[in-house]
Amino acid sequence: MDRFVCDCVVIGAGYSGLAAATRLRALGVNAILIEARDRVGGRTLELPVAKMPRLELGGQYINDAQVRVNQLVREVGLQAVPAWTEGDSFLCVGDRVARYTGTPAKCLTEKLNYPAEVGAEIERTLDELNRLFPLVSAAEPWVGGDAENWDAITFQSWLETRVQSDMGREFFKFLTNQAYSTEPGQVSLLQMLWFIQTSHGLPPWAIGGAQANRVAGGTQLVAQRLAERLGDALHLNQAVQAIVQTEAGVCVETGERDYFAQTAIVCLPPQLVPGLIFSPPLPPDLYRAFAAMQTGNTMKVQAVYDRPFWRDNGLSGNGINWDGPQTFTYDNTLGDGPGVLLGFLTARRATEALRLPLHERKQAVLQAWADVFGPEALEPIDYIEHDWTADQFTRGGYGCHFPPGAWCEFGAAFGGESMPRFQNVWWAASDLAKDWNGYLEGALFAGEQAAEEVAASLTCAAVG
Amino acid sequence: MDRFVCDCVVIGAGYSGLAAATRLRALGVNAILIEARDRVGGRTLELPVAKMPRLELGGQYINDAQVRVNQLVREVGLQAVPAWTEGDSFLCVGDRVARYTGTPAKCLTEKLNYPAEVGAEIERTLDELNRLFPLVSAAEPWVGGDAENWDAITFQSWLETRVQSDMGREFFKFLTNQAYSTEPGQVSLLQMLWFIQTSHGLPPWAIGGAQANRVAGGTQLVAQRLAERLGDALHLNQAVQAIVQTEAGVCVETGERDYFAQTAIVCLPPQLVPGLIFSPPLPPDLYRAFAAMQTGNTMKVQAVYDRPFWRDNGLSGNGINWDGPQTFTYDNTLGDGPGVLLGFLTARRATEALRLPLHERKQAVLQAWADVFGPEALEPIDYIEHDWTADQFTRGGYGCHFPPGAWCEFGAAFGGESMPRFQNVWWAASDLAKDWNGYLEGALFAGEQAAEEVAASLTCAAVG
Repeated sequence: MDRFVCDCVVIGAGYSGLAAATRLRALGVNAILIEARDRVGGRTLELPVAKMPRLELGGQYINDAQVRVNQLVREVGLQAVPAWTEGDSFLCVGDRVARYTGTPAKCLTEKLNYPAEVGAEIERTLDELNRLFPLVSAAEPWVGGDAENWDAITFQSWLETRVQSDMGREFFKFLTNQAYSTEPGQVSLLQMLWFIQTSHGLPPWAIGGAQANRVAGGTQLVAQRLAERLGDALHLNQAVQAIVQTEAGVCVETGERDYFAQTAIVCLPPQLVPGLIFSPPLPPDLYRAFAAMQTGNTMKVQAVYDRPFWRDNGLSGNGINWDGPQTFTYDNTLGDGPGVLLGFLTARRATEALRLPLHERKQAVLQAWADVFGPEALEPIDYIEHDWTADQFTRGGYGCHFPPGAWCEFGAAFGGESMPRFQNVWWAASDLAKDWNGYLEGALFAGEQAAEEVAASLTCAAVG
Repeated sequence: MDRFVCDCVVIGAGYSGLAAATRLRALGVNAILIEARDRVGGRTLELPVAKMPRLELGGQYINDAQVRVNQLVREVGLQAVPAWTEGDSFLCVGDRVARYTGTPAKCLTEKLNYPAEVGAEIERTLDELNRLFPLVSAAEPWVGGDAENWDAITFQSWLETRVQSDMGREFFKFLTNQAYSTEPGQVSLLQMLWFIQTSHGLPPWAIGGAQANRVAGGTQLVAQRLAERLGDALHLNQAVQAIVQTEAGVCVETGERDYFAQTAIVCLPPQLVPGLIFSPPLPPDLYRAFAAMQTGNTMKVQAVYDRPFWRDNGLSGNGINWDGPQTFTYDNTLGDGPGVLLGFLTARRATEALRLPLHERKQAVLQAWADVFGPEALEPIDYIEHDWTADQFTRGGYGCHFPPGAWCEFGAAFGGESMPRFQNVWWAASDLAKDWNGYLEGALFAGEQAAEEVAASLTCAAVG
């Protein structure tokens, strides 16, 4: 059994873990970062495919409002570039395809002849969400007069009293699927408002807002550059089995190695935490909070073509297939490289599509694109997908969330303004972030916050 | 590393595992039963306390309709005895205490002067539940025209359109807490109807029905007698870490021992399944189904007195403290032994009471009994509680359940008419039983069903 000794063991080399380890070392804390896989980056992942140097299979979008990730991208010598948006977006409902430049809700009434009331009830409900979400505390969503009621009603039940048209309800199902990778019947109104609160408002595509950026070189490259700086402090292929806390400190056991430290930060997707052995066991509320987490289900599917042929026709490549299997499509072409269409399979659609054999799923995805872009879409050079839910070191996408009622019963175990903590073990993950929850920015936020808390605790211990 | 070879490894020596191993061996299958603890019985547990030979800290009730458990009790030479019910039940609301012999709903209007409409809306809603639950399939609750809608609405939202009075809503909160150890805002209507379906109707105390029985000697003694018969085929102190499936079969690893077999049955509480390492990993739907399970929260608190003094006053000892911390109280006296009051702390009340220091929680529980039975209740010989949620080999009570939406998205992964299965690994637990889910009877049902399925598969393999 190999033994390592340090001040803090950080577990998991996704964005949170890399940010935590980097921050700790900057603060003079001797941190070791251990990772189960043979790579860093967690839910960011790039693979070389077809004619392309790489294709991003995981988290890839950032935006101008996300301060930390933009600063980090610059720090590691990379730059943010706007995602492609030139041309019309599309909205495909049944066998009808419309082009639009505003919002999908407007497109429904203005281009696809849905009754004005459909657009109006969508707008009214979006407005109401915009009024309500600022009332939910990002750090303590269970606080406040309406929290209990909002946590006991599903978003779907709430919608049904506000939105009467089938298309209006479909719109909010689509929004819930695409933005939060779950179904309106699986989240409480409180959870939805909290999501919107921590992501600084409704998704821009739904309300017409700022476009997203990508990282030239890819988001995993940011992680790889952070990893390079960590040098020997990064240990790959070390899957944690147990975390043992004694008066002497924390021992993190991987089976082949024991890491002894004063503190640890667990930077795994929260849904994996019940898979670790803790001694002493996690206290009931904290255990239940992790165990309650429901994994979202998202798969990115991408087709590579010689060139982005849809642009010839004035289409941006971005838009919506209402009837799936993909929900949103983006033009994921890199510079003047081959044309790439990126589709998101989300929530129930992902679950159902994943039960199909690959060739059937691929055919359904390509056909949905052919309905919009023409038969050329049926003949890609390559077709790539990655199932994050089947990946045992992730088990879900984009992230995870509480089911109805959990915030109010034991959500406080996640620490409120602080990161979750049990004795000398802290947690960080984008899914635990109180700012930009579920985004790369949130992962950095959570990792850095946990690092600051650990460093402060070590300073106190040194002084005390 | 010690190695054992058999036809089937059964994991977990609760009622399900004991039933599975016993049935397998009766069918000529060489089964080994392994258990993490140093005892058998799972969620049944007895301890000697005060003047008593034992006190039951876990599942203890059975009833006449439960065929398997009654047969088993007789088989192991024990007998079922009626729980104590002589005398009036009590219903305590605020500082008012009423006695009743019918149902609590009738007591509210007839004795505590709640408006007739309160009783009427409770009765109407109970009637509606009675009409609806037979429409839900015990094996495939996601099938049927209303399943999707029923799974997307919380029981609480459904109630709010039917029950207007505060007391009426409290009644159904109480029912949900006491009967299913969860909150109306944490379960879908579908889950509630499924619970009622698999438990053959609404709880008798709510609608006035057959009384419960206990096992003379205790329910854990039944488990111990089954364990004796298994002899060397039972291995204690073997906590499973990993289950590895290859073409050669299944290897169950405990760290110090490897068990090689053709098949395995995992008889752990389902919420613990994500804590095991599976190779190959569980397929996404099955993994998500286990990970989605929400643990109920129940603690039994018991006070032992020289004698059941409440009986002097014509009280049965059974009844309801509306304002808690305990929900239901039962007279848990054994024969002419010391008097025992048993209280259930359930769902949110349990969660909140468990955050108090022991002495405060004890004081609150005893005071609630003193409000009904007089100051004598404040001076027990002994006070005993067991926190099943803190117990790392159980992590919840009575059992666990799906959150809203889960049945319809991936509930089919639990096997429908069959028990859950992945290659040569099966699952059984009371929480997975399609009959008497959550009861001891359900544990036997599930364990025996899995055993039959394994035996059939081994026979096929032998013939094939």
